[in-house]
Amino acid sequence: MALTTCLEKGGPHVAPDHFRLMIDCAEACRAAAALMINHSPYHAEFCRLCAQICRDCAASCEELDGMEACVRACRQCAQACEAMAASP
Amino acid sequence: MALTTCLEKGGPHVAPDHFRLMIDCAEACRAAAALMINHSPYHAEFCRLCAQICRDCAASCEELDGMEACVRACRQCAQACEAMAASP
Amino acid sequence: MALTTCLEKGGPHVAPDHFRLMIDCAEACRAAAALMINHSPYHAEFCRLCAQICRDCAASCEELDGMEACVRACRQCAQACEAMAASP
Amino acid sequence: MALTTCLEKGGPHVAPDHFRLMIDCAEACRAAAALMINHSPYHAEFCRLCAQICRDCAASCEELDGMEACVRACRQCAQACEAMAASP
Repeated sequence: MALTTCLEKGGPHVAPDHFRLMIDCAEACRAAAALMINHSPYHAEFCRLCAQICRDCAASCEELDGMEACVRACRQCAQACEAMAASP
Repeated sequence: MALTTCLEKGGPHVAPDHFRLMIDCAEACRAAAALMINHSPYHAEFCRLCAQICRDCAASCEELDGMEACVRACRQCAQACEAMAASP
Repeated sequence: MALTTCLEKGGPHVAPDHFRLMIDCAEACRAAAALMINHSPYHAEFCRLCAQICRDCAASCEELDGMEACVRACRQCAQACEAMAASP
Repeated sequence: MALTTCLEKGGPHVAPDHFRLMIDCAEACRAAAALMINHSPYHAEFCRLCAQICRDCAASCEELDGMEACVRACRQCAQACEAMAASP
């Protein structure tokens, strides 16, 4: 996944702020998915937070070379999270 | 943990809304802990959400018999989360 | 997911051994998926364990009424895990 | 945690094999802890795997400078996992 690709690329791809953001993103996605699966009444808050982190992640990936696929994936994930946050 | 104790007790302890709330609580705690460990700039939002779910969990446990230890644990966790949400 | 469906059905669906097995299965799948994504050299052991738990889960679901979809899903997951355990 | 410290240190601390090993270790610990909490009949296999990964992690940290605290933590975790793997 993104983390593994970035480790191989090294340099700015493993800069602390960038890499930490990707770990945050993975954790936020995992939590949002778990709450969706659990039909949680708190899913909207988690999906909204997850969407925000995915957007920040897309912006951070956009500053690096060769991460177009990552940027697209983060944006799609952000949109999916926003749609789920808006659903009952 | 709470989930396992409730499974053994059965009855209202495995009522869908109660049990789902406990699964949500476990997921929220896990995510908040992961973000704290990662020194995440998003930790405050996750800790605040986690505190809210812990308080709801305490209230749900309070309606059942013999869950005093659980209620206390949920309240302590909520306080710890609020303290972490307020820290930089 | 399975957990949520079983909570709604109640009775034998929330029997401690059955329900615990499903929580184990969810955790094992989560760990196996995380290690696959991480290109982990330990993925084979985790996928093998996950396959075993999925098969046990299928057998446990088979003893209950109306869980045919669950049984199928657990078996498919077990096969996928076995295939991944055998891959380098 | 280890991941965050290594990100700040950079260089060999973010070498793919080392860093991946630490992510594996975090996932293995998380899964082992979840199964212990769930009183899982599969806890021994997970704790044994986790102990092995912790020992590999200690060895990998030992090759880097200034990671004595990490090495100690990994060894203690490996011992705790072995003790839990041996318990019923």
